[in-house]
Amino acid sequence: MNTADLGLPVAVPSTALFTDHYELTMVQAALRGGTAHRRSAFEVFARRLPEGRRYGVVAGTGRVLDAVENFRFEPEILRFLGERGVVDEPTLAWLADYRFRGDIKGYPEGEVYFPGSPIMRVEGSFAECVLLETVILSILNHDSAVAAAASRMAVAAGDRPLIEMGARRTHELSAVAAARAAYVGGFSSTSDLAAGFRYGIPTVGTSAHSFTLLHDTERDAFTAQVESMGAGTTLLVDTYDVAEAVRTAVEVAGPGLGAVRIDSGDLLLLAHRVRQQLDELGARDTRIVVTSDLDEYAIASLAVAPVDAYGVGTQLVTGSGHPTAAMVYKLVARADSDAPDAPLRPVAKKSMGGKLSVGGVKWAARRPDADGMAEAEVVGTGEVPEELAAHQLLVDLVRGGEVVARERLEAARERHVRARDGLPLSATQLSRGEPVLPTEYVSG
Amino acid sequence: MNTADLGLPVAVPSTALFTDHYELTMVQAALRGGTAHRRSAFEVFARRLPEGRRYGVVAGTGRVLDAVENFRFEPEILRFLGERGVVDEPTLAWLADYRFRGDIKGYPEGEVYFPGSPIMRVEGSFAECVLLETVILSILNHDSAVAAAASRMAVAAGDRPLIEMGARRTHELSAVAAARAAYVGGFSSTSDLAAGFRYGIPTVGTSAHSFTLLHDTERDAFTAQVESMGAGTTLLVDTYDVAEAVRTAVEVAGPGLGAVRIDSGDLLLLAHRVRQQLDELGARDTRIVVTSDLDEYAIASLAVAPVDAYGVGTQLVTGSGHPTAAMVYKLVARADSDAPDAPLRPVAKKSMGGKLSVGGVKWAARRPDADGMAEAEVVGTGEVPEELAAHQLLVDLVRGGEVVARERLEAARERHVRARDGLPLSATQLSRGEPVLPTEYVSG
Repeated sequence: MNTADLGLPVAVPSTALFTDHYELTMVQAALRGGTAHRRSAFEVFARRLPEGRRYGVVAGTGRVLDAVENFRFEPEILRFLGERGVVDEPTLAWLADYRFRGDIKGYPEGEVYFPGSPIMRVEGSFAECVLLETVILSILNHDSAVAAAASRMAVAAGDRPLIEMGARRTHELSAVAAARAAYVGGFSSTSDLAAGFRYGIPTVGTSAHSFTLLHDTERDAFTAQVESMGAGTTLLVDTYDVAEAVRTAVEVAGPGLGAVRIDSGDLLLLAHRVRQQLDELGARDTRIVVTSDLDEYAIASLAVAPVDAYGVGTQLVTGSGHPTAAMVYKLVARADSDAPDAPLRPVAKKSMGGKLSVGGVKWAARRPDADGMAEAEVVGTGEVPEELAAHQLLVDLVRGGEVVARERLEAARERHVRARDGLPLSATQLSRGEPVLPTEYVSG
Repeated sequence: MNTADLGLPVAVPSTALFTDHYELTMVQAALRGGTAHRRSAFEVFARRLPEGRRYGVVAGTGRVLDAVENFRFEPEILRFLGERGVVDEPTLAWLADYRFRGDIKGYPEGEVYFPGSPIMRVEGSFAECVLLETVILSILNHDSAVAAAASRMAVAAGDRPLIEMGARRTHELSAVAAARAAYVGGFSSTSDLAAGFRYGIPTVGTSAHSFTLLHDTERDAFTAQVESMGAGTTLLVDTYDVAEAVRTAVEVAGPGLGAVRIDSGDLLLLAHRVRQQLDELGARDTRIVVTSDLDEYAIASLAVAPVDAYGVGTQLVTGSGHPTAAMVYKLVARADSDAPDAPLRPVAKKSMGGKLSVGGVKWAARRPDADGMAEAEVVGTGEVPEELAAHQLLVDLVRGGEVVARERLEAARERHVRARDGLPLSATQLSRGEPVLPTEYVSG
């Protein structure tokens, strides 16, 4: 399959232009200088978590695999690069044949991570690996930021379902990826039809205030909606007066009304009042959905309220204050020549301004304590200590250019719950704190 | 042209799935209830600016026009909607013929806006207008957030050029739109090749730390780069020791070296030291580019430093703390019947929790003071007062479904400079403040 999987209604032929100009000029200079084919290892990691966060969530891995598979320089792209003078003719010729033939290992999607966790490792020639930097970081930085926010919201919501409804608050394609990442992080459904189409995520929605305002009376609007969608629908009750709307809603739909939605006002107070009113009207099974500018803190504060589901928009798709995950893609080792058996030598930029970079190809393991709970993220170079061999985190994703780790989105979603459950209890506190696991470096 | 213009390397056939589920169920209920064809007007506005911001910047208008033009329900999409049971058969049949045939007016791209400014107005039948809500908001909320940050950075940078390089910090398609919005807001170039391909924005870039680390010595790396790209290239000088790198750079490239880039450390201090060193080495025309986690405040603090250009990533593409513009799309007026001559009647949700909604179709004008500087954003319903007629802000974008306002991206970029220059001087202060123009409501 040579079509790019961008979460679009349709596929597009290539991801190769989602790339910074300098990746290509580096390839040109390295081709000319004879260093382009030195075997190299790049690692993706985050130097820190967003301030106060206890863990990160790896998301976007599946999208990275698609992007790598479809990273081809089509004739139209080569023409553009040539006309603009981005790179010279020999480089264009090399790009025309480009196809990633190296190996990628990484934390599987849904896994948690900590500062320094080697979330992904890309190995191959320098030229073939450096080209992938921008698109890999774009995907992981965006999707992981959303998944981390989703995970915190899912913890705050407990057993109550979360609906992703942030499409209108972010770029139209980010929205599709955000719905996917939110699903990995614990959301149950999305408002975004493209996410339903592309990823099979359940889509939901019934009506907005405009639908009520379109009608001469709120009763007319509720009647039209119930006649069209049945009594099991969700009626929006805060366009005018909530108490009057709830009364009208139950009159129109009967006590079998599916749900009411409240999208403004003091949700804690309103939920209690509406619950009482619904019960008094005999609509004991009618659910209450709330959807007004929620974040994980607002969700947690509604735990004591009779709320049945939360819809979350802005704060989810913008990572609840941290819209990007600050992951970087660094050359950590490379050969001294392009001989196929030349050993990899650790390299690292000199630390300046507090930017920590540790050279060398790394393994990672999550060390359990005596009770089986995680107690440290151990990152090392060289041999993996025997006692950690069974707790390693990196898995094969691509071997010799072939994707070997496709999985259903549900697998990532389930993995995330297991990974989070394996962390110390304080992982799920919403208040600010240090990463819940320390990262220990071991050099072999 | 029936292809969607998403800033992709290639076009895709439809934007119709970038839509919330409930837009379609509302259409279904309105079709069945007989209200779907009531003439309606929806308006896009922001209730507030991000805290402390003095003005907003309209961006994405051109992308909205493309999205509206390509909003079609292709057979594959209809099949999905039918199989999932999103809407019923009569609605699917209506959607199959869907094409927006109404009118859109709006603030032209690059214009500034304030709380309550009617940034866009969409008029037509309820059903045809409500469907466009999600995609219009996605585009305007994202692009305007980035453009607003870009504009503040451009003010801080003065005459020094700004390079957009945030692709790796945001979704790969957001990155393309962000480069476009940054260009509207005042940036000069981008690292993102897709933005160059799609929008003709100049792309730039030379090398990263990985290129230096690939080589056995920094001198080898600089030599390879200069041999490939010429002495006019930009050499990255902070991989090891900056002073040594600058010396090596000038030795390798000669005093005609184009530029050096500093990507870490105390930029203010380093820029002064590097400038002095370059001058002493005779490289008086070699420019200094700085690129380390800059935002508008860091840029402003470097005004006194001998810096020639700024590269900005994370803080630009995430809107410098405000990644979404909080615009909403509200039904403000509709007819009481679907008779073609039925007059539009103002409608509005009851205010609750401080959400201000003003009903009625609005005009807007920016009132100048005696010196010709803007002194108020005047938003009204009914007749436009004669003295404001020449200062109106909304222009025709779509008439009868036909786009009538395509323009080059440069036009939006130039308009933004004019619009910002027309504001009171305090508009460009970076410190927090109220919107620099008050919004006055006039009801006719």
